Amino acid sequence: MDRKINLTEQEIPRFYYNIVADMPNKPLPPLHPGTRQPITPDLLEPLFPRELILQEVSSEQYIQIPDEVRKIYAQWRPTPMFRAVNLEKALNTPARIYYKYEGVSPAGSHKPNTAVAQAFYNKAEGIKKITTETGAGQWGTALSYACQMFGMECEVFMVKVSYDQKPYRKILMNTFGGKVHASPSNLTAAGRSILEADPFSSGSLGIAISEAIERAASDPTAHYALGSVLNHVLLHQTIIGQEAMVQMEKAGYMPDIVIAPFGGGSNFAGIAFPFLKLNLTDNQKIRCIAVEPESCPKLTRGEFRYDFGDTMGLTPLLPMYTLGHDFMPSPIHAGGLRYHGAGVIVSQLLKDNLIEAVSVNQQRCFEAGMQFIRTEGIIPAPEATHAIAAVIDEANRCREEGTARTILFNLCGHGYFDMAAYEMFLSGKLNGEKQVSDSSIKDSIKALDQFQPIMNQ
Amino acid sequence: MDRKINLTEQEIPRFYYNIVADMPNKPLPPLHPGTRQPITPDLLEPLFPRELILQEVSSEQYIQIPDEVRKIYAQWRPTPMFRAVNLEKALNTPARIYYKYEGVSPAGSHKPNTAVAQAFYNKAEGIKKITTETGAGQWGTALSYACQMFGMECEVFMVKVSYDQKPYRKILMNTFGGKVHASPSNLTAAGRSILEADPFSSGSLGIAISEAIERAASDPTAHYALGSVLNHVLLHQTIIGQEAMVQMEKAGYMPDIVIAPFGGGSNFAGIAFPFLKLNLTDNQKIRCIAVEPESCPKLTRGEFRYDFGDTMGLTPLLPMYTLGHDFMPSPIHAGGLRYHGAGVIVSQLLKDNLIEAVSVNQQRCFEAGMQFIRTEGIIPAPEATHAIAAVIDEANRCREEGTARTILFNLCGHGYFDMAAYEMFLSGKLNGEKQVSDSSIKDSIKALDQFQPIMNQ
Repeated sequence: MDRKINLTEQEIPRFYYNIVADMPNKPLPPLHPGTRQPITPDLLEPLFPRELILQEVSSEQYIQIPDEVRKIYAQWRPTPMFRAVNLEKALNTPARIYYKYEGVSPAGSHKPNTAVAQAFYNKAEGIKKITTETGAGQWGTALSYACQMFGMECEVFMVKVSYDQKPYRKILMNTFGGKVHASPSNLTAAGRSILEADPFSSGSLGIAISEAIERAASDPTAHYALGSVLNHVLLHQTIIGQEAMVQMEKAGYMPDIVIAPFGGGSNFAGIAFPFLKLNLTDNQKIRCIAVEPESCPKLTRGEFRYDFGDTMGLTPLLPMYTLGHDFMPSPIHAGGLRYHGAGVIVSQLLKDNLIEAVSVNQQRCFEAGMQFIRTEGIIPAPEATHAIAAVIDEANRCREEGTARTILFNLCGHGYFDMAAYEMFLSGKLNGEKQVSDSSIKDSIKALDQFQPIMNQ
Repeated sequence: MDRKINLTEQEIPRFYYNIVADMPNKPLPPLHPGTRQPITPDLLEPLFPRELILQEVSSEQYIQIPDEVRKIYAQWRPTPMFRAVNLEKALNTPARIYYKYEGVSPAGSHKPNTAVAQAFYNKAEGIKKITTETGAGQWGTALSYACQMFGMECEVFMVKVSYDQKPYRKILMNTFGGKVHASPSNLTAAGRSILEADPFSSGSLGIAISEAIERAASDPTAHYALGSVLNHVLLHQTIIGQEAMVQMEKAGYMPDIVIAPFGGGSNFAGIAFPFLKLNLTDNQKIRCIAVEPESCPKLTRGEFRYDFGDTMGLTPLLPMYTLGHDFMPSPIHAGGLRYHGAGVIVSQLLKDNLIEAVSVNQQRCFEAGMQFIRTEGIIPAPEATHAIAAVIDEANRCREEGTARTILFNLCGHGYFDMAAYEMFLSGKLNGEKQVSDSSIKDSIKALDQFQPIMNQ
């Protein structure tokens, strides 16, 4: 039996899988924050191409992947699947552990799966530039690469504190042709107003989003792009799970458990939704587990409410599990998981008990990551260590129960740009993760009362 | 036709290919620096396991790869081969360009191919610890990983200036369990004597080698390991070319030209020797081109002389193309190519006109690297950009001549730990490469006169 399961270029999926078609309860509609009535798609047109807006509201089961997009996917897809033979041995578990490795992409994560699709649809409508925000830099890197592939400009507003702390991420975006600005910047009214009040502001994702949106809205040849949360972003990521299913079939085992890190939902949706389809349409019972940081526990301790997608309150109101858009998570190293809410589709699935969620603390994540490095030889991104920690827990349970379950997880990216975090762990200086009190969560969710629709209260 | 050509685990080579068996003129023997007589293998026993010493002097055509080693190779091997479709299009060339990508290994380069083999043979003889030196850190990373896989200690003496400048490389070694010391250190007599004379010494590869050797020689359970130059190191790397040959067969084209970066020889030997075999035993005419930096031009401007393998003069005298062991190359970013000489086997092949060599300047290498990033989506290590520059030259020639040649090159590693170098290039601040004058080469080679054997003069 091969340790690595490869597919051919012909096996790159031809369709994105839209789980909305198979959900027993469809997601509730986004609301206009003023009227608190469902928004109409045309409101999104200044920022997104028509095709992506249609995908955002689609209930078609499958949406065809354009040939041009598949051709670019072929630069790194299908991604390999590995059986974690050495980790299994180290854990002395009867479990079979498989991982899908998305770190082989040009940006080193799963993010280009949607970045390439989004760049394509924008290009097809004559757009010349895409703006976006980025925190740690994974998304900005993916979009820079995707725009380069289609000969478009990419402008990235990078939170200033990350811009200063992660110069190599910024250079990586530059090598792919991305223009990177520290946010707040002087390029937008939003940035200037922040800088006027505090010339030394270290920025926030909320400010960076405002800058990127303002920049796109004020330029008729520019659009804006998001790297997670939205339905069309989750949709594009489902190629991960579709490939994984073919690979598991080749391995001769179907997973009993599918595990992925959880930030806004695209990582988890990407690998889990095609397997979840088997539960929804074929009576299977595959457990799909989303793993979030203990310090940002929207799935395990948040509430299902209408909330803004961003921290500034610019987006429509979305029905989701949330900690409140004012919630400020600890500065943990898994920057991609520090988001206050869960995407609309995933939230509905959790509400309907169709998926599970667990949380893990940072120390445990890095311990799991280190065990993975020393057995499997791959440096996982801090985000990915969350999945690994949960996998190890499940594998240990298999040993205790004497049951040989098959576990699949999404190794969503490599950690070559996160060595400083590993050094902190190795030198015993990992810190910064605060306990989240029930009362703080209650307070920030209570503040949402004013935004709920009458019908939903 | 697939852009990516994968092989299965069963296709990992079962033998290392030893080109010595097929060479028309065998390499001259290494000499004892005192007697200037050929050395006997037993002199190497305090530092290397018997099996590796036998490989060093073997003339068997094939040497079997142990099962345990193949099992570890399977963590990342066979490595993928890609057709550079987008680069071809950007160059508007009729050439077919293929690359073998060794950057998918745990250490991010081709180095683990030999590190794993060396760790295995040491472990088999009861050795508990391997010491080595490292400059930029690629080799130290590979050996740390390999030792971790066999449950052995790894102690790395890292040149102090690199230790300070490349903290992330050091942490990477730590994550694989390697113990890393800044060299000169207080752990050895060699280190202490340097520090006594200059407490702020920034170290050199020569000093680090002395420390690693002293440390191994003074501990009966420890051995020493080298990452290039020696025959057995080149031997282990031939799995690259063997895999590449099967992949080219699957692609339906055999290469007319094989290109690789050149430091000490293992990168070039790895991909080229199995193809060169076809020239030596089957009358084929595949051009094999080694690419060196203009600032360290041992193949294109050095002389074939007996010289020491290290800068301090500790090793046996080796017959090789050299710039003299005192030659001090510019501090270019491709640290792995800053070696004064060429391995014995490669030197003999060049002397017999069986391979070719070209040199490229650093500016041109980074331009080529950037073109590669923006077409193929992979960040190459600075070493690898040398091959890319030569590939682009050959592809342009194909366009001018209207000839559709097939070009294969070794993309030996990724550049995720070299972003600072790319930033310098992008900001127009790349510098540090000095012109090498004929007289400086002549002087440092002249100094070798005292070390030549009577018979060879």
